[in-house]
Amino acid sequence: MRLKHIKGAEETVLHCDFVIQDCINYKGKFKELFQNDHPIHIEIGMGKGNFILNMALKNPTINFIGIEKYDSVLVKAIAKLEQMSLPNVRFIRMDATDIESIFGKEIDTIYLNFSDPWPKARHEKRRLMSENFLKKYDSIFKEKKRIVMKTDNRHLFEFSIQSFTTYGYHIDHISLNLHEDRIDSIETEYEKKFSSLGYPIYWIEVSK
Amino acid sequence: MRLKHIKGAEETVLHCDFVIQDCINYKGKFKELFQNDHPIHIEIGMGKGNFILNMALKNPTINFIGIEKYDSVLVKAIAKLEQMSLPNVRFIRMDATDIESIFGKEIDTIYLNFSDPWPKARHEKRRLMSENFLKKYDSIFKEKKRIVMKTDNRHLFEFSIQSFTTYGYHIDHISLNLHEDRIDSIETEYEKKFSSLGYPIYWIEVSK
Repeated sequence: MRLKHIKGAEETVLHCDFVIQDCINYKGKFKELFQNDHPIHIEIGMGKGNFILNMALKNPTINFIGIEKYDSVLVKAIAKLEQMSLPNVRFIRMDATDIESIFGKEIDTIYLNFSDPWPKARHEKRRLMSENFLKKYDSIFKEKKRIVMKTDNRHLFEFSIQSFTTYGYHIDHISLNLHEDRIDSIETEYEKKFSSLGYPIYWIEVSK
Repeated sequence: MRLKHIKGAEETVLHCDFVIQDCINYKGKFKELFQNDHPIHIEIGMGKGNFILNMALKNPTINFIGIEKYDSVLVKAIAKLEQMSLPNVRFIRMDATDIESIFGKEIDTIYLNFSDPWPKARHEKRRLMSENFLKKYDSIFKEKKRIVMKTDNRHLFEFSIQSFTTYGYHIDHISLNLHEDRIDSIETEYEKKFSSLGYPIYWIEVSK
C-alpha cells in the first residue's frame, strides 16, 4: 500500500477512544475491555478497516481488534468507525512483531488480508505466515488455532500453504479464485480494485 | 479426453512387447523385467504417452511404467515407443482401481497428470488423489512415498492439496502457474494445447 503522510494522524490516533492506548494493562484480559465473553478475532494489518468493520457489523457476538502499524492508514479506519459506532471493534497501533507482548492466550481467529509478500528469500521471516510468526501466534491463541488469509500474490500464497501445513495446520477451506466461487467474504479496499480487473484472489482457512 | 474407437487397437495392445501382458507374474519383482535395480516411477493415466516417454528419454537410470485404461489411447503411445525404442519404459493396460493387485512395495514415484476431475461430490472416491486411492498407493510405494501431479482443473487441485495434506503428505513444491514459473517439466499433449491458451497449470509435489 502506498502511504501518504497525513498531517495530525499521530495526534488523532493517540487521542482516539477506539484505539487501545494502554494495551499492556489488558494482556490476557481483553474481554474486560469489551465487557463480555464473546470470542476475539484480530486482523493483522487491517489497513483502512473495511474488512474488520464490516465483519463486526455482520457478527455482533464476536469482538474484533484491528492491528495497524501506520497512523496515516489507521486514521481512515477511525473515521469510518466514528460513523458506524460499533461496540465490538477496537484498534491497536502496533507492529505485528510485538504481538506476543500484547495478547495472552485469548484470541480465537487471526485474519491476514493482503499482507506484505516480502518477496526476497532473505525476508521470509517477515512474512506474517512464516514459521517465525506462526510460533508467535501459538502464544496468543486461546484453544483452537484458526487463521484465515487471502491475497492476490501467488507466490505468497504458495509459500503460505507450505508454511501452514508444515507447521501442522489442517486446511479447512481453500479457493484459488475466491470471487469465481462466490464465497461470502467481505472485501478489503485493495481487493475491490484488484478483483475488478479479473485477477484471482487466493483464500485459505486453516486450523489446528 | 475424447475417445475415438480405433480399429484393431485391442489386438495391437494384446500382442505388443512393450505392454506387460503377464503383470501378475511380476508383482513385487518388476525390477527383473527391467533387469536392473533402478527406481521405478509410474504414471497413472498416461494417455498418448508424451510425458512418460520424454521423462524416460531424459532419465535413463529410472524405469518408467505407464498405465492406461483405454486401448485406443494406448496404441498411440505404443506407436511412439516403437520409434524411440527406449529400454526403460513399459506400459500396462489396466484400470487404476486394481493397482494394489499389480504392484508390490516397489514404486518410488507416482505421476498423476491431468487426471479425470470427477467433479460430482458423490464421485469423490474415483479421483486419483482421494483417500481411497492414497490408501492403495501406500501398499505399492517402496519406502519414501512421492506423488507429483499437475492439472488445469482448479477444483481438483484444491481438493488434492487438502487430500494430500490431510493424509499426512508434506508439500515439497507447489506452483499455481507452472508455465509462468518456467519449472522444467515435460508437457503432456493436453497441456500444450491448454497452456497455449494462457490458462494456468497447477502443479504439486508431495512426499511422506
